[in-house]
Amino acid sequence: MRLPSEIIRDKRDGKELSAEDIRSFVEGLTSGQVTDYQATAFLMAVYFQRMSFSETAALTQAMLASGERYDFAKLEGVFVDKHSTGGIGDKVSLILAPLAAACGLKVPMMSGRGLGHSGGTLDKLDAIPGYRHDLSRERFEQILAEVGCSIIGQSARMAPADKKLYALRDVTATVECIPLICGSILSKKLAEGAQGLLLDVKTGSGAFMPTPARARELARWLVKVATKLGLPARAVVTDMSQPLGYSVGNALEVIESVEILKGERLLCPEGKPPGTPLERCSADLKELTIALCAHMLEIGKKVKNLAEGRRLAHARLADGSAWKRFQEMVRAHGGDASALDRVERMGLAPRTVSWNAKKKGFLAKMDAREIGLLLVELGGGRKRAEDRVDPGVGFVFHRKLGSRVIVGDPLVTVYAPASLDLAPLEARFHAAIKYAASRPSLPKLILDAAAK
Amino acid sequence: MRLPSEIIRDKRDGKELSAEDIRSFVEGLTSGQVTDYQATAFLMAVYFQRMSFSETAALTQAMLASGERYDFAKLEGVFVDKHSTGGIGDKVSLILAPLAAACGLKVPMMSGRGLGHSGGTLDKLDAIPGYRHDLSRERFEQILAEVGCSIIGQSARMAPADKKLYALRDVTATVECIPLICGSILSKKLAEGAQGLLLDVKTGSGAFMPTPARARELARWLVKVATKLGLPARAVVTDMSQPLGYSVGNALEVIESVEILKGERLLCPEGKPPGTPLERCSADLKELTIALCAHMLEIGKKVKNLAEGRRLAHARLADGSAWKRFQEMVRAHGGDASALDRVERMGLAPRTVSWNAKKKGFLAKMDAREIGLLLVELGGGRKRAEDRVDPGVGFVFHRKLGSRVIVGDPLVTVYAPASLDLAPLEARFHAAIKYAASRPSLPKLILDAAAK
Repeated sequence: MRLPSEIIRDKRDGKELSAEDIRSFVEGLTSGQVTDYQATAFLMAVYFQRMSFSETAALTQAMLASGERYDFAKLEGVFVDKHSTGGIGDKVSLILAPLAAACGLKVPMMSGRGLGHSGGTLDKLDAIPGYRHDLSRERFEQILAEVGCSIIGQSARMAPADKKLYALRDVTATVECIPLICGSILSKKLAEGAQGLLLDVKTGSGAFMPTPARARELARWLVKVATKLGLPARAVVTDMSQPLGYSVGNALEVIESVEILKGERLLCPEGKPPGTPLERCSADLKELTIALCAHMLEIGKKVKNLAEGRRLAHARLADGSAWKRFQEMVRAHGGDASALDRVERMGLAPRTVSWNAKKKGFLAKMDAREIGLLLVELGGGRKRAEDRVDPGVGFVFHRKLGSRVIVGDPLVTVYAPASLDLAPLEARFHAAIKYAASRPSLPKLILDAAAK
Repeated sequence: MRLPSEIIRDKRDGKELSAEDIRSFVEGLTSGQVTDYQATAFLMAVYFQRMSFSETAALTQAMLASGERYDFAKLEGVFVDKHSTGGIGDKVSLILAPLAAACGLKVPMMSGRGLGHSGGTLDKLDAIPGYRHDLSRERFEQILAEVGCSIIGQSARMAPADKKLYALRDVTATVECIPLICGSILSKKLAEGAQGLLLDVKTGSGAFMPTPARARELARWLVKVATKLGLPARAVVTDMSQPLGYSVGNALEVIESVEILKGERLLCPEGKPPGTPLERCSADLKELTIALCAHMLEIGKKVKNLAEGRRLAHARLADGSAWKRFQEMVRAHGGDASALDRVERMGLAPRTVSWNAKKKGFLAKMDAREIGLLLVELGGGRKRAEDRVDPGVGFVFHRKLGSRVIVGDPLVTVYAPASLDLAPLEARFHAAIKYAASRPSLPKLILDAAAK
């Protein structure tokens, strides 16, 4: 291989690297021939000089080749996965995996943990007593054959180069870079072996890509690179300018997901819900899940068009078959399915307090990222990868953006640890909210139906 | 301190860092709180976003504060040092230190080793039998008091942060960055304790800064930062579009220096020198040394103006007092001064071959960097810091840029190891030379007399 410092220099100077250069650099990183401090200089050079489409594909390919790869080609069924770039209160996977399975797809999901403001599906699953996500490949395939969906943790043997690079990016301010994001997401998704991929690219105050323009750019690149590397993919750009659904926090998000799957109210904070009914606060979550399911069904050619997909998804949600799949999946993973619809067994924090509107008017803006960080302060998320998470803490929102409130209306119920001083957190919460005198125009939930 | 990743992020985003941020980052690097891979991401961010003058001064100050600092204030005399940004055949320090001392200055020089195409004064001194440059502070001060000049190696205890950062820059393509160059050069020079500093900033094909514009920019920054940090400094920008003097190679460069100091020809390759007399090939070296000495004398207020400085330097060179100082310095460092003017004792490589002109015309261009790299191929320089150097190999140039030649005229005599295949090196040498049909215009030896 060429000297790592020469490859770094070429990238620094804006030259396009050959696939061979990129391959040898990534291989060198895995083997130790390229040091961590050369990797981070390279990452920062990529941050400034970007990568071409070909370079990004080569990077993704090299990261994929660094580890193990699953392949479901010999198994029965059409395997389609969904990946979200992450947000606040995004529990879509919990509902979507069993729903898409109930509609006839195989859904092999590998998820990660939350870090910083952003939650992770594995942490939500951890709130279900007994649920194990460290299953063998054989058991994963068996559950997919029998149940149709399985959500497990990413195998350490898949795309180890990504693991290393991501850890380095996280502490060197090189996370927000589209070619690197592409390589990280797609190397893992390609390793998973799905035959189709739906990408939910979030935009707004709680998202990785705050502006729609950047989110659309990421969506285009993800689809282009995935397709080039043999994985049929499409992307939708969706709104994350407020938490999705009514809940933020691991056990609370499982409960909200079960409510939608079962079609039944389970949570009733403070006797009866004040303000907007909780169902209405979940409307966006349900709408998004149905829409994403329709896209997955179209990708997997289970339906002729999106409208048919949406109808099928609605039907499988309404007839209880998605809820049945979810319970089967939980049981197959060693989880206690009987706890799912019994709120008292979900380990919610015993102390609840209400944070109320300080002004009169319409809820116009919410810093969703700050809500995510406040969850971390409650103990429900991680500052560092090694932190432990308290599944029982979190937020239940009674109002969403656009709601009209008067002073004193409850905005959110906080599930908090008994001894934590909430005053500074409440101050931060209020600072994260903006009111307007007239009804604000709100972003669409789904900005772009499909970037292909 | 703030999180290192936040400091990196701010620099990445083009924000000006506070002195406190820079200090804590550099301290963290020395203490281990900031990792090497964070340092290199930071360096690459600095490469792209630059640093302001204040940031560069803070960086230099922090690197200086990371180690020991000498102080000659209590000693008798005016301590002035010279630093060159490095080039090919640049043996000026060997002549200038004893010359300036003979003119009444104290010259406390700390030098480094060569790496890549660029030579180092310590390697040249190593060609003198017995010369030791790892002397204690006490011995260094004693020699300065008695002889007036001493050239030693940089103490590992001075500016250790620079040592670390430089090693990282070297392998991450972050060397060519003016704020980082300033910090590296000046932290060491400030630690040395001199009371005045002359900077010889090279430009041209063999220099670090290939264009005059970039060299001038570096010169301005060096002077501005040094002055701000309390070290009176000036800079001259000088030409490095061909090797300086006639020799390239450690023992050969000592011999050429002694010839100038002693005013006597010592080396006579192949019986009698073909082509341009060797004296004429040394003219640039002598002229530059005299000019730099005059600047040092003016900085140290030993003369009223440069013309007086130049006269004094010429006189001390002509009357043999500089040569006497040089011998005293060598003896004080444990070196065998009796070997200095006896070429047969300088360990020159036994095999010499001549590389001759391939075309007729004027020598118009020479890739001096390539000459430096060819010296490395002969074994006379280093690819990596841990490589050993053969002091006896090198080049003696018979022609300089502007010389008129016909096919077959000897251009250079090569001192080579007995077993090395020289054919590929000769091909590279010829590729590094350009001929012109008419007399070419050549760059001035001294482009800018003084950037203050």
